[in-house]
Amino acid sequence: MNRYIAVADAPDWGALLDRAEYFRKHPHADTGLGKNKTLLQLFYNSSLRTRLSTQIAGQRLGMEVITMDLTQGWALEFTDGAIMNENKAEHIREAAGVMSRYADIIGLRSFASLQDRHADYEDFVIHQFARNTQVPMLNLESAIAHPLQALADSLTIRQFHPGHRPKVVLSWAPHPRALPQAVANSFVQGMQRMDVDLVITHPQGFELNPDIVGKTPVLYDQRNALQEADFVYVKNWSSYQDYGLTAPHLTDWMLDHNKMQLTNKAYFMHCLPVRRNVIVTDEVIDSDRSIVLDQAENRIYAAQAVLAELLMDGHER
Amino acid sequence: MNRYIAVADAPDWGALLDRAEYFRKHPHADTGLGKNKTLLQLFYNSSLRTRLSTQIAGQRLGMEVITMDLTQGWALEFTDGAIMNENKAEHIREAAGVMSRYADIIGLRSFASLQDRHADYEDFVIHQFARNTQVPMLNLESAIAHPLQALADSLTIRQFHPGHRPKVVLSWAPHPRALPQAVANSFVQGMQRMDVDLVITHPQGFELNPDIVGKTPVLYDQRNALQEADFVYVKNWSSYQDYGLTAPHLTDWMLDHNKMQLTNKAYFMHCLPVRRNVIVTDEVIDSDRSIVLDQAENRIYAAQAVLAELLMDGHER
Amino acid sequence: MNRYIAVADAPDWGALLDRAEYFRKHPHADTGLGKNKTLLQLFYNSSLRTRLSTQIAGQRLGMEVITMDLTQGWALEFTDGAIMNENKAEHIREAAGVMSRYADIIGLRSFASLQDRHADYEDFVIHQFARNTQVPMLNLESAIAHPLQALADSLTIRQFHPGHRPKVVLSWAPHPRALPQAVANSFVQGMQRMDVDLVITHPQGFELNPDIVGKTPVLYDQRNALQEADFVYVKNWSSYQDYGLTAPHLTDWMLDHNKMQLTNKAYFMHCLPVRRNVIVTDEVIDSDRSIVLDQAENRIYAAQAVLAELLMDGHER
Repeated sequence: MNRYIAVADAPDWGALLDRAEYFRKHPHADTGLGKNKTLLQLFYNSSLRTRLSTQIAGQRLGMEVITMDLTQGWALEFTDGAIMNENKAEHIREAAGVMSRYADIIGLRSFASLQDRHADYEDFVIHQFARNTQVPMLNLESAIAHPLQALADSLTIRQFHPGHRPKVVLSWAPHPRALPQAVANSFVQGMQRMDVDLVITHPQGFELNPDIVGKTPVLYDQRNALQEADFVYVKNWSSYQDYGLTAPHLTDWMLDHNKMQLTNKAYFMHCLPVRRNVIVTDEVIDSDRSIVLDQAENRIYAAQAVLAELLMDGHER
Repeated sequence: MNRYIAVADAPDWGALLDRAEYFRKHPHADTGLGKNKTLLQLFYNSSLRTRLSTQIAGQRLGMEVITMDLTQGWALEFTDGAIMNENKAEHIREAAGVMSRYADIIGLRSFASLQDRHADYEDFVIHQFARNTQVPMLNLESAIAHPLQALADSLTIRQFHPGHRPKVVLSWAPHPRALPQAVANSFVQGMQRMDVDLVITHPQGFELNPDIVGKTPVLYDQRNALQEADFVYVKNWSSYQDYGLTAPHLTDWMLDHNKMQLTNKAYFMHCLPVRRNVIVTDEVIDSDRSIVLDQAENRIYAAQAVLAELLMDGHER
Repeated sequence: MNRYIAVADAPDWGALLDRAEYFRKHPHADTGLGKNKTLLQLFYNSSLRTRLSTQIAGQRLGMEVITMDLTQGWALEFTDGAIMNENKAEHIREAAGVMSRYADIIGLRSFASLQDRHADYEDFVIHQFARNTQVPMLNLESAIAHPLQALADSLTIRQFHPGHRPKVVLSWAPHPRALPQAVANSFVQGMQRMDVDLVITHPQGFELNPDIVGKTPVLYDQRNALQEADFVYVKNWSSYQDYGLTAPHLTDWMLDHNKMQLTNKAYFMHCLPVRRNVIVTDEVIDSDRSIVLDQAENRIYAAQAVLAELLMDGHER
């Protein structure tokens, strides 16, 4: 694997999960793999879990990790041929070119604009970085994908596996702000590579990108979808069709104890941060079926597995 | 010791000072103690000495240290049962829960509001973190306490000990802004655990919390208090009674050379940063009796001692 | 070498370049040299290349590197005797004094004001730090000098050396904002210590400080200057005479392919970041004679060489 921008970049999801599971059992294995290697993490948007888990993962592999906070802005020019006489002082060609002289792996977080679906769904910024670096790119959540989260989510489902082929429900929930579709997109793609029955449920108008959903069943009736679920993953996303539209008034879609009663004692999952009593009631998230902190912890092992593969392929080249 | 939120959390002040003294003599002892352990430092308020000294202390023990600057704000919800549909995106339960999956020790700086004495004196924020983590909490200056500073101050008094039971004077001084009582509170508590004669002096209306002062003598006459002092610790704090009130006009309280003449060639102490010619004259702080840089250096050894104890108790659990 | 504030601080430019070249060939040599040593990097102005390359250099030598971003401001008092009752909470004496208890080398970036030539050309801020620390100071670009860049530039000219004594041209180029003279100053001083023919070219009114230029030939005719050049270093700077004046309208001074045809297949150099199609055309910077990324990479080895010398002299004292 020489980059991890999308779930599809992993050639073998099961093997990557095996590796992540190995790191959960042996967190301090392979501490020499990243010796003399530098991971550069760039954050155009703020981060808690991703920043910490990826930094810890890199350090456990023996890497030096340098984190750059760009939330105050770093206005790069992305247009070829631009006459740069205005407010952008550096072109992506030099920026990415220089960073690939300094780092062995470059991680980037750059959220969706939610203004221009076409640009977002090209995943423009991270691909511009990838095109101009010589080193593996690691997606720390881009406009449309959060594959490190998806790997941790898959790992968590393995960890709490019921023994039989599990039913996994991804349910939309209301939220006061317009959020990207990145987490939902990558979760769907991860589940499609697992031996699970995935069902998606959301209000009409909140269909995800049909190229991503494919043949995965979609129900508009949340209660129906939840029947006999083994895992319930709740997440808000804004509309793909009416791009960026949100629906905070659909409070009926909050997950509560009554709805959980419809399931097969399902585990409750969320990528965090979560708005309590908007997305999910306290009762559900504080119950013993809530595995949100395990998901968060698994972010470390997922990142370790991905970094390890990127380091090994980097060596081969 | 499984947390260090207040001076009282140290079961044996003398033993902790012994350990700090050991690190002053052997700064690179015990470099394996923190191997594969992570210290997470969170700063809601800016920091120079605390940030650097604690980071260096952690690194010397072999820890990975991750520093997060939250001065631009990280609006956590602290209220149980809140319906989180406004501007707070994460609840302390998840925030602290996740961080205790990622870190082995969590340090936090969160200053007093100086608006609500009741909330400040509950030391609400750091206790909310402590309640929701599974790992030891380290106070990097909270609303009412700065126990790492107090330990370094005690260590400095040991270092420059006159041989006899020393007289230590804590004197209020004027300052243009309203400052918390945290440093003064913890200094008093540290001195109360040392074999010293502590005297506090300040203008009327600037009495510290009586629960902290206890039987420590308080004088309103600074010159009288300074007689035969071996150590003079100068510090501004705003009023506890008329909560947050300050008195920059009381310029008579600045420490100068004439006042130092009343002492037993006392050493001059301050936690820094210090406003020259407001708190203390250049002549005093630049004299050979000024030990403010030694105090600052001792912050490293104090932090090393505390981290070492937190790491050892962490191992036992 | 016990500080590196200016090119002149290096007693032997050739020996320093030898050491940098050694690190280019053996980047992970001398990893024990900085064991138990801390490099503190302070940035009053933002930085990509300097921050990353210096951090990586320090880490490769085994140092702990702590980077502090002061771009949001850290208002120090620099005036002796000041009555500090306004907005400055700390004096340089304590700030620098404390940091020299915490760090073994202190790096500082503090750009020119471009308002007060006298203060800028005293290089006031970095010299104030140097005066008040006990440890070596490293210039990460000050008001008038960028000696780490100059060393990397010299190293790059060695790397791409044509075999004969090369002609090196430093050419002014237009820029929409007023930039300091630091890079140009240090480049000139570096070249004056190399076995090269240096020529400077710029519009009238953009003469550099005559004390720095010395006997180096200056031409106002750019095309004439470029004849038979082996290296062309392009850089904007604002006026030294009419201090801080800039001239974005002099677009004729942009470097393009036609001008490069006048040279001896010269290599194109720039310190980056560069404004494409303002300073230089895409055609030139994207050509195979462009060595700007090599320059940037050489920043690591230059910093490694300087840090190594500072560490070794630190040991001797």
